[in-house]
Amino acid sequence: MIKAIYPGSFDPVTNGHLDIIQRSSRIFSELIVVVMSNQNKSTLFSVAERIRLLEVVSRDFPNVVITQHPGLLVHFMQLAKAQIIIKGLRALSDFEYEFQMALMNRTLDDDVETLFMMTSNRYSYLSSSLVKEVARLGGSVDELVHPVVAAEVKAKFLPATPIP
Amino acid sequence: MIKAIYPGSFDPVTNGHLDIIQRSSRIFSELIVVVMSNQNKSTLFSVAERIRLLEVVSRDFPNVVITQHPGLLVHFMQLAKAQIIIKGLRALSDFEYEFQMALMNRTLDDDVETLFMMTSNRYSYLSSSLVKEVARLGGSVDELVHPVVAAEVKAKFLPATPIP
Amino acid sequence: MIKAIYPGSFDPVTNGHLDIIQRSSRIFSELIVVVMSNQNKSTLFSVAERIRLLEVVSRDFPNVVITQHPGLLVHFMQLAKAQIIIKGLRALSDFEYEFQMALMNRTLDDDVETLFMMTSNRYSYLSSSLVKEVARLGGSVDELVHPVVAAEVKAKFLPATPIP
Amino acid sequence: MIKAIYPGSFDPVTNGHLDIIQRSSRIFSELIVVVMSNQNKSTLFSVAERIRLLEVVSRDFPNVVITQHPGLLVHFMQLAKAQIIIKGLRALSDFEYEFQMALMNRTLDDDVETLFMMTSNRYSYLSSSLVKEVARLGGSVDELVHPVVAAEVKAKFLPATPIP
Amino acid sequence: MIKAIYPGSFDPVTNGHLDIIQRSSRIFSELIVVVMSNQNKSTLFSVAERIRLLEVVSRDFPNVVITQHPGLLVHFMQLAKAQIIIKGLRALSDFEYEFQMALMNRTLDDDVETLFMMTSNRYSYLSSSLVKEVARLGGSVDELVHPVVAAEVKAKFLPATPIP
Amino acid sequence: MIKAIYPGSFDPVTNGHLDIIQRSSRIFSELIVVVMSNQNKSTLFSVAERIRLLEVVSRDFPNVVITQHPGLLVHFMQLAKAQIIIKGLRALSDFEYEFQMALMNRTLDDDVETLFMMTSNRYSYLSSSLVKEVARLGGSVDELVHPVVAAEVKAKFLPATPIP
Repeated sequence: MIKAIYPGSFDPVTNGHLDIIQRSSRIFSELIVVVMSNQNKSTLFSVAERIRLLEVVSRDFPNVVITQHPGLLVHFMQLAKAQIIIKGLRALSDFEYEFQMALMNRTLDDDVETLFMMTSNRYSYLSSSLVKEVARLGGSVDELVHPVVAAEVKAKFLPATPIP
Repeated sequence: MIKAIYPGSFDPVTNGHLDIIQRSSRIFSELIVVVMSNQNKSTLFSVAERIRLLEVVSRDFPNVVITQHPGLLVHFMQLAKAQIIIKGLRALSDFEYEFQMALMNRTLDDDVETLFMMTSNRYSYLSSSLVKEVARLGGSVDELVHPVVAAEVKAKFLPATPIP
Repeated sequence: MIKAIYPGSFDPVTNGHLDIIQRSSRIFSELIVVVMSNQNKSTLFSVAERIRLLEVVSRDFPNVVITQHPGLLVHFMQLAKAQIIIKGLRALSDFEYEFQMALMNRTLDDDVETLFMMTSNRYSYLSSSLVKEVARLGGSVDELVHPVVAAEVKAKFLPATPIP
Repeated sequence: MIKAIYPGSFDPVTNGHLDIIQRSSRIFSELIVVVMSNQNKSTLFSVAERIRLLEVVSRDFPNVVITQHPGLLVHFMQLAKAQIIIKGLRALSDFEYEFQMALMNRTLDDDVETLFMMTSNRYSYLSSSLVKEVARLGGSVDELVHPVVAAEVKAKFLPATPIP
Repeated sequence: MIKAIYPGSFDPVTNGHLDIIQRSSRIFSELIVVVMSNQNKSTLFSVAERIRLLEVVSRDFPNVVITQHPGLLVHFMQLAKAQIIIKGLRALSDFEYEFQMALMNRTLDDDVETLFMMTSNRYSYLSSSLVKEVARLGGSVDELVHPVVAAEVKAKFLPATPIP
Repeated sequence: MIKAIYPGSFDPVTNGHLDIIQRSSRIFSELIVVVMSNQNKSTLFSVAERIRLLEVVSRDFPNVVITQHPGLLVHFMQLAKAQIIIKGLRALSDFEYEFQMALMNRTLDDDVETLFMMTSNRYSYLSSSLVKEVARLGGSVDELVHPVVAAEVKAKFLPATPIP
């Protein structure tokens, strides 16, 4: 029985993230998706919203659990008694950053192992930032995120309705 | 008759941009340089200033038109009935980002095609940010931008003159 | 009227090459696909075979011409009175090599301009070498190349039939 | 119970490979190390020698099995009823090549999933080729490979003893 | 007698920086470590603090001098009558950025030469930002920085003690 | 007094190599250019020819010495009582390979330090292989190598003169 952790900001969850959730939930007996909530950066969605959207999109995968953690990932790994971190790699720039994080995590806790999966190349260009940028400029994000996520992203960028 | 679009922030236009304008204006019958004006980031020059500087430096290329667009690039392409985006590639980091944008644009509009040109290797290190950084620290930008641009960049970083 | 040249080994033409041929033939008034025949390396298909397969797969594009050239690409450009080279970029490693070649070609002839297109990300992993490797090991190449090419690649790796 | 496959040339197995074997054997219930024997390239060690050396160095890991396969990796996966391929990533150049192979394998068999592990950064520079190059030039490979492998590599490069 | 300059933000100095200081101080007769103080970005440590920490960690290297400079690096080089800049390279992303800076510096002053050293691969994942991020989240930075630096970083992230 | 070693194949020396020789000879008191002669690969020029061409092109630099070494570079370093290796970096692909070699050399001898210089971006596309390829196809290499080298490269690719 192997438990794996899939950490991220998920602001919001994209079809690329969903692809990793789906494929890694087939490999591991339990997959814990962790919203890293203390990232010191401003987000479009609150932690509670990000968790709710993740719950909606991963509803069909019974062995997937959604949670959050406000501190260091290795502390969460120790609490959850988990040793495997799953990360999706899309492209080169991911590679460098994720390697740096994986080496750091190994320095902080020798038992932690990071396994990388390739994001499906249908989604190799996709990121939460790009989704937000397209929505902000009035483009459609229907092919980039789950319909429920698309609706909520759209709502965030609606002009404020004047009160009559 | 092929119309090509060269989009960017141009804050300000550098000799590297000018090199791409010059070379692509030789290939295509019309080149529309578009200042992407709604980038959610603070700029040194206003949209009007950036357009004016682009007009000065591309004065000698009769088939080059300067304009702006506040939203998604693919929406501009549809308005302009254009299908070709021109982008300059200087180095590896450009490559990753520009590929991501090109794939995104292709997802948003299947008819849009991005063509990449290599920036002359004389300018492979050059970016608008670097120009501003050098000027801010009191260095000369005379070899990096057109003389008119150099004068205006310099003026932006002049210490406020004390009123006697 | 812009004429573009698409050079390569095409040993054999893959669906990735075909994607570039199709998309660039929509942009330029004439596309000349050139089998670079004097590459000093052993090939699976002869120049004549490679030309024939290219003719089969690009049959539906009336403005595409197939030819060969045994020497320097810039010499061909001068002969063909063409100034645009089209190259497909799949990934990072392409980028470095193709940039090197483009800079070299610009050094050899200042009028030559290389334009890069992204190969569709459906084919970002695809190369002629991979096609040959898969076929050699008995795998199916049906999703990687045109049916006519698939049949010929397969035939090349058939075990010699013993004569009764 | 998850079975994982670790394929490679292993000509010969290095401390970097051994690091991947050790760490992945802790994660998966069974690890099958597969010498890909039909690589069309000349090797220093025969398949039988490479298997024997792998058996020596992985002797202490009871859930590790060594075998060979002369054809396509996905065919072996189907025979072994395995779905997980493990690959070590050392550096950027690995990344590109391994991604290409992983995408190809996913095209050939949709059930196959490739998981990447980072090679310990103590061995980030290490490859079988480098081991052979150092040994050929008379350098010591004692810190690069297992002592048994070091002895055999050294023996391969001994000058032929003149017969008296 | 060759004098070399090692510029950086050093916010704070890490074991990776210290590795470069140690190794380059063995090569050059004098090594001037320069805190670039006018970087327009907010820092955790003041310039004075950063200089003091650098002085502590490089105490054992008699030919190392610590100073600061608020403007362009090439101006400092001219003041210090130095021609060699030392930069540590950890990974790919460093490479691109540092090459850009080195080319820019060569454009600004033809006499300036940048020499790159590889950071020990024990520290290839390490950066000042990562040190601050780990400390902010309550992790230990004892293996990442000198003990004196570790104590000061820790102090910066201590919760304010309520006054009784 | 610092002695530096500049090792390579130099088959033949290009203007890019010459740029590194010129710039590093200004920094170090003695520069030993070493033709690595036991590379197990076929070369266009013999070791003696490569040394002679290096002597011609570096004639004006009094502190440059040309020699050869048939074995491991670190053995040469020990013989020459030198600790500094100079390598030119042109592009990304150089970076990966040269880092691997530098880490290997550091493993083989802890006292050896590799310093990297950027090749002038005028020569960022240039390699000995490219020079040979261009000459083989009948192109001019006059802008790529020293006139004496150009003449000898040309002579190597002259068609055999028929005897009357």
